[in-house]
Amino acid sequence: MLIDGISRKSIESNDNYEVKIIDQTILPHKLEYIDLKNFSDCCKAIKDMWVRGAPLIGVTASYGMFFALKENSSKKNIEYSFKKLLATRPTAVDLKWALENITDVILQINENDRADHVWGIARKLEADSIEQCSKIGDYGLEVIKSRIKNNKTFNILTHCNAGWLACVDWGTALAPIYKAYNSGLDIHVWVDETRPRSQGAALTAWELSKHGVPNTLIVDNAGGHLMQRGEVDICIVGSDRTAANGDVCNKIGTYMKALCAFDNDIPFYVAIPESTIDFKLKSGVNNIKIEERSHNEVTHVRGINEEGKISKVKITPDFVKSHNPGFDVTPARLVTKLITDRGICDPTTDSIRKLFK
Amino acid sequence: MLIDGISRKSIESNDNYEVKIIDQTILPHKLEYIDLKNFSDCCKAIKDMWVRGAPLIGVTASYGMFFALKENSSKKNIEYSFKKLLATRPTAVDLKWALENITDVILQINENDRADHVWGIARKLEADSIEQCSKIGDYGLEVIKSRIKNNKTFNILTHCNAGWLACVDWGTALAPIYKAYNSGLDIHVWVDETRPRSQGAALTAWELSKHGVPNTLIVDNAGGHLMQRGEVDICIVGSDRTAANGDVCNKIGTYMKALCAFDNDIPFYVAIPESTIDFKLKSGVNNIKIEERSHNEVTHVRGINEEGKISKVKITPDFVKSHNPGFDVTPARLVTKLITDRGICDPTTDSIRKLFK
Repeated sequence: MLIDGISRKSIESNDNYEVKIIDQTILPHKLEYIDLKNFSDCCKAIKDMWVRGAPLIGVTASYGMFFALKENSSKKNIEYSFKKLLATRPTAVDLKWALENITDVILQINENDRADHVWGIARKLEADSIEQCSKIGDYGLEVIKSRIKNNKTFNILTHCNAGWLACVDWGTALAPIYKAYNSGLDIHVWVDETRPRSQGAALTAWELSKHGVPNTLIVDNAGGHLMQRGEVDICIVGSDRTAANGDVCNKIGTYMKALCAFDNDIPFYVAIPESTIDFKLKSGVNNIKIEERSHNEVTHVRGINEEGKISKVKITPDFVKSHNPGFDVTPARLVTKLITDRGICDPTTDSIRKLFK
Repeated sequence: MLIDGISRKSIESNDNYEVKIIDQTILPHKLEYIDLKNFSDCCKAIKDMWVRGAPLIGVTASYGMFFALKENSSKKNIEYSFKKLLATRPTAVDLKWALENITDVILQINENDRADHVWGIARKLEADSIEQCSKIGDYGLEVIKSRIKNNKTFNILTHCNAGWLACVDWGTALAPIYKAYNSGLDIHVWVDETRPRSQGAALTAWELSKHGVPNTLIVDNAGGHLMQRGEVDICIVGSDRTAANGDVCNKIGTYMKALCAFDNDIPFYVAIPESTIDFKLKSGVNNIKIEERSHNEVTHVRGINEEGKISKVKITPDFVKSHNPGFDVTPARLVTKLITDRGICDPTTDSIRKLFK
């Protein structure tokens, strides 16, 4: 998508084995590119969340495997690097999927050719992700078009960041939005702040604004009121992990937005690439272990201080305890449809299986 | 309630005509008492939100009238002071109610006795508020007792701050919690951060902790997940304005918590003093104009910086627009019961009328 008129991607590679990412931890205050030059850069990039979002983590991890094998392509190092990369974000399904994708084939290849082969896999994964997100965008665009009933601005609510910053390009939940905007539709996006990490405020509002898509930031508490007052026409969110029955595990707070949409007869769509579907997981509610994240995310907020520097403030005294579950599960009964790269389907075991058989 | 073992109130007065408040704008980072010595101190305390919460504003305004009349008890000055105080927080219902309470009687009294008479009214209002909140606490305690089914810790979720800091003592939503804790029940409170002003993080977690009540701060997004996982036994919130049919206008985000409670069969109680019931308002949903508050509340967050000073950070670049509705309306159908100072009632026109006839 565009940054001030110039087309960019969240991870960029070239034929000289160079890989570049955006440090997303300092967005929206600074735009800085970082070169990933070795295995430990890639681990750090994932662990410290310079990159985040399932697809982008998968691609970054694949480049990590390339750098690892460039140094040492032995079976032992493959296993070590696999474990090390997996531990950077233990709950990210795409990470595991991308790494298994590599280890499934790599041992059958001559040790000297392994690094180059993995480079090819990583490059293909990067290109496939763009293609996949673009398709989600195309199918989602049809959904939006079919929901527009009058000449008024069409209002879309989204939670967290499932945009191009989370993928390589286009995004998942934001892909239909970019496609709609690019095709000239009159749309506007309500952006949930998405505490505690505030990816909505920091990333979604930034990337939509930079591309030119009209949007307004709201606190996570406000969406219900807007839906009740008829100011939301559709919700589109992403998914970190989707159970075989259509239950959706996504950023904490998604479940409440789905409940509000349901209570107000507003369609609630979830945009997912195939990789986030966990076909082995029959259902999601109460079956997914939810990651408990650092309490500092709740008690500290990052921003620009009065001197114009990026800094953090602590919002509570040390004696205040906090709890920080990272995700929640939205039951399939609250999801209108899934928007996938293979088309639209119902959030049911049968419908999902039919599309992805 | 207690602050580190010592009993305190949000406003304290004595027989020497001295009035003291807590500067709530610097909580939870600093505890500072401020003496209100004259009329303009009282105006400033309300306008700059050193005091907030409907009952506390009403009491502070009454002391403001006392100081005004101590200087000059003429009709002209009564009218001037009334207008001046009313303008400090134009939307606060209790403020207007408290001032009218005074002006209704004061002109019939000898000019020399007026100040003393208003002092008496203010002291009575202060005492009445404590009594009223204490009764809400007693009725709410019975609710909690009746809901405890086993020996496990009983988990209560609350939104925003409806504690003693918003009243004079006890609070509304927190009154049953203090009574339960004081009577030795094994309780724990989930405290919603309550963006954008974060009164949960700044005030509720502080006052509960200072009194000794076990509590844990969560972001506003987390409550739904906790309810889905059986970690919430009851929700208790306050109300800024309650329609005659039991629709509840409260801090933005309340509606979503009520939906979650409903979806998970968790009782959702609203604690209200009589003064917040608007008997003229038949129903609340779509009939209450919601205050649009400053966008700075969304884009700026206050806390302690790395040098230990209270300061603000800006979380978004200037090109990001925001929208900030201050309240939302929870339909009566999602409310289990109302806890009032006259007893418990259903959130229906008949049941409310019966209790307050």
